[in-house]
Amino acid sequence: MTEPTKFTLTEDRIPTHWVNLMADLPGDPLPPLNPGTMEPAGPDDLTPIFPMALIGQEVSAEPEVEIPEPVREVYKLWRPTPLYRAHRLERELDTPARIYYKYEGVSPAGSHKPNSAVAQAYANKEAGIERLATETGAGQWGSALALASSLFGLECVVYMVGASYDQKPYRRAMMESWGATVIRSPSDTTDSGRAQAGHPTGSLGIAISEAVEVAGKDPGTNYALGSVLNHVCLHQTVIGQEALAQMEMAGDEPDVVVGCVGGGSNFAGMTFPFVRRVLRDGAKTRFVAAEPAACPTLTRGAYRYDFGDTVGLTPLMPMYTLGHDFVPPPVHAGGLRYHGDSPIVCALVKQGMVEARAYKQNETFEAALRFARTEAILPAPEPAHAIRAVIEEAEAAKQAGEERVILLNLCGHGHFDMSAYDAYLAGELEDPEFSEADMEAALERLPDAPAIA
Amino acid sequence: MTEPTKFTLTEDRIPTHWVNLMADLPGDPLPPLNPGTMEPAGPDDLTPIFPMALIGQEVSAEPEVEIPEPVREVYKLWRPTPLYRAHRLERELDTPARIYYKYEGVSPAGSHKPNSAVAQAYANKEAGIERLATETGAGQWGSALALASSLFGLECVVYMVGASYDQKPYRRAMMESWGATVIRSPSDTTDSGRAQAGHPTGSLGIAISEAVEVAGKDPGTNYALGSVLNHVCLHQTVIGQEALAQMEMAGDEPDVVVGCVGGGSNFAGMTFPFVRRVLRDGAKTRFVAAEPAACPTLTRGAYRYDFGDTVGLTPLMPMYTLGHDFVPPPVHAGGLRYHGDSPIVCALVKQGMVEARAYKQNETFEAALRFARTEAILPAPEPAHAIRAVIEEAEAAKQAGEERVILLNLCGHGHFDMSAYDAYLAGELEDPEFSEADMEAALERLPDAPAIA
Repeated sequence: MTEPTKFTLTEDRIPTHWVNLMADLPGDPLPPLNPGTMEPAGPDDLTPIFPMALIGQEVSAEPEVEIPEPVREVYKLWRPTPLYRAHRLERELDTPARIYYKYEGVSPAGSHKPNSAVAQAYANKEAGIERLATETGAGQWGSALALASSLFGLECVVYMVGASYDQKPYRRAMMESWGATVIRSPSDTTDSGRAQAGHPTGSLGIAISEAVEVAGKDPGTNYALGSVLNHVCLHQTVIGQEALAQMEMAGDEPDVVVGCVGGGSNFAGMTFPFVRRVLRDGAKTRFVAAEPAACPTLTRGAYRYDFGDTVGLTPLMPMYTLGHDFVPPPVHAGGLRYHGDSPIVCALVKQGMVEARAYKQNETFEAALRFARTEAILPAPEPAHAIRAVIEEAEAAKQAGEERVILLNLCGHGHFDMSAYDAYLAGELEDPEFSEADMEAALERLPDAPAIA
Repeated sequence: MTEPTKFTLTEDRIPTHWVNLMADLPGDPLPPLNPGTMEPAGPDDLTPIFPMALIGQEVSAEPEVEIPEPVREVYKLWRPTPLYRAHRLERELDTPARIYYKYEGVSPAGSHKPNSAVAQAYANKEAGIERLATETGAGQWGSALALASSLFGLECVVYMVGASYDQKPYRRAMMESWGATVIRSPSDTTDSGRAQAGHPTGSLGIAISEAVEVAGKDPGTNYALGSVLNHVCLHQTVIGQEALAQMEMAGDEPDVVVGCVGGGSNFAGMTFPFVRRVLRDGAKTRFVAAEPAACPTLTRGAYRYDFGDTVGLTPLMPMYTLGHDFVPPPVHAGGLRYHGDSPIVCALVKQGMVEARAYKQNETFEAALRFARTEAILPAPEPAHAIRAVIEEAEAAKQAGEERVILLNLCGHGHFDMSAYDAYLAGELEDPEFSEADMEAALERLPDAPAIA
């Protein structure tokens, strides 16, 4: 085997701009709505919790947004990330497919999340903000924001979903090592938390409500969200831009690009630069979004206006949703346990440009171990869903006898998820699924908002 | 700040040879001794547990040893590793020094250890061996060998020091995810383990005895050691060779190279290529070895022949030692809790080419947090000792008003050591030190072997 394995870019190849897919999407985007007036939400709805620079990015119609130099300087601590050809996995699968993966786990927090955390911390620091409040489920976003806040001299308070706080003390310790304050959610520090007092596990929706409330009440504190919103997806497009350059180095063209979807940010980050090429140049690329069967937003959700949080403090967003107060079963892929998804990603699914697939927990860990024992990296449970889809694609290529090219976004490592691997190896993992009754209940609780065509 | 931060090599720059410093050391090396005859140990003493290829590397007099192509292919999964200029740490320290660090934590197991594990697994596979037995303390070496065994289709059994087995279930799960069998040491699977039945914590020395015993008794099983021996230090020299090339890219020349020392392999790997330059070309480079005050082998040990394991199954090796049955206090830098050190590293200390310094636990974690909050990476407790020494060097440069260049080997991340950070942040870490009484007791128990001049 003398074919190249790793495609390496030097730091001068870190992208200078983020890709704003909004500018290229056909038709007018559906606006977020003010839940009080049902009118399109404007900057005034957002200024209490976000700096103007990020609001500008959220609604920008420009196809590209320049990355501030101090953000690029921090990116140099781990970017450009490597892109690998998965020679060993290909041999294990005995497939004619060529599999590539972009590895975002080399960031100090262990995932793609710092790509946006750094951009958000910088924008808030420039706006004179002193403290950021956020929520975290599995801990990847909280770690990323703790790190970014540390680098830009901001305070950081993280509302951590109760179940994760109890099960993942090392994620908490990581955030605290970077100087953040971590509070178990629901907490008694907010009205939103007190209203849920005694909730045994907490949820991402509740934790979001707590962080948004804190930011809304304190002028020196802003809120930072780790996924879903347009500006978060925007920041993540450094991934796909680098991957485009690296696939060119490899002399290959992906037939299909695969990622997992929780709120959509890693999927958006990898795919949007490729989607833009499809929209502009008619490139024939397929896109596959992998999600958990326990929280099948894209495959089973209703395409409706819904809140981003449990309590209902955020604007209404047009998206596939399982209902804003749906609390998914406690699968280990905590980063995929969200009732909604990025409105842009949802629109792409609605238009048929992105195919969504849902996987059960055990089959994703089986895929993760096959990957770890051939490609060496232990994946986080979230991208394990995408790996499962990659294996399906590779097997389909074998079936068809075609040399298809598959590109995977391996968005993080599993170093803080070893208890999940332990449970899988012991045969103790469950396979919870979303039921029709869950969906009916969710539909009944959706807010009264205009229907989407 | 527009100066470069990250110095990146492409995969074709992975070294083609390992550097064998033995060939350049002045004088004849002190041989290991057969403890029964007190004659130099020969290949016959080692063939029961090591393949001939590694024995050949252990005693080689060639200045360079070619790296087998299949080993270089695996190295591509994470090598070349990045070298960084620590701009942010420099600003934090307000020092005129320029600080660089080579980061080995990007390997899938999280440290430099796979550099040797892969070489050893390959050599054993080629020799027809089916299974490898080893010990692990903190878990870094066990993880590395589990990974390497998985990639070359070998079985792997890891004797894990009891205290670590109990405290670090996630390291165990990592090894099991790569397919290894992990056994708590002391165990009832060996005579060496049964002789220590009931030992509450176990020790690295006991675990080595167990693994060596298993390998000695089963022809299909060999033993693999993660440090100390010449061939392990040899394999690690890919680190220093890459660093030489990267420092050249940076246009800088290190005044001092700093690493931590447990058994000596990461220190050897970084420094030997630089030491060879000093020996050959008279380069003026200083070398600083950082070790724990709780296990101060190089700073307080006796320079004598001693066993590598607790029970006394290995040849006698010429080294600084605290006594082969010394059980160091349970500091979190588990990888530095070893009674001896690499004979070559010891010889360099004896000759005055390497300066050793011992640090207490709390001051190393303080240094680690300063690093994490500026350079983003959370270091393992072991290299935290080296970071402490780097900060001293940077402060000395400031005192002297000199632009000194400091090169650090950051040999691993701390993702599996967050409980230690947690304890440090809670003010609960102790600062155990080695006592005169410890040393007197150790000297009395040293084996009866020829003195070293």
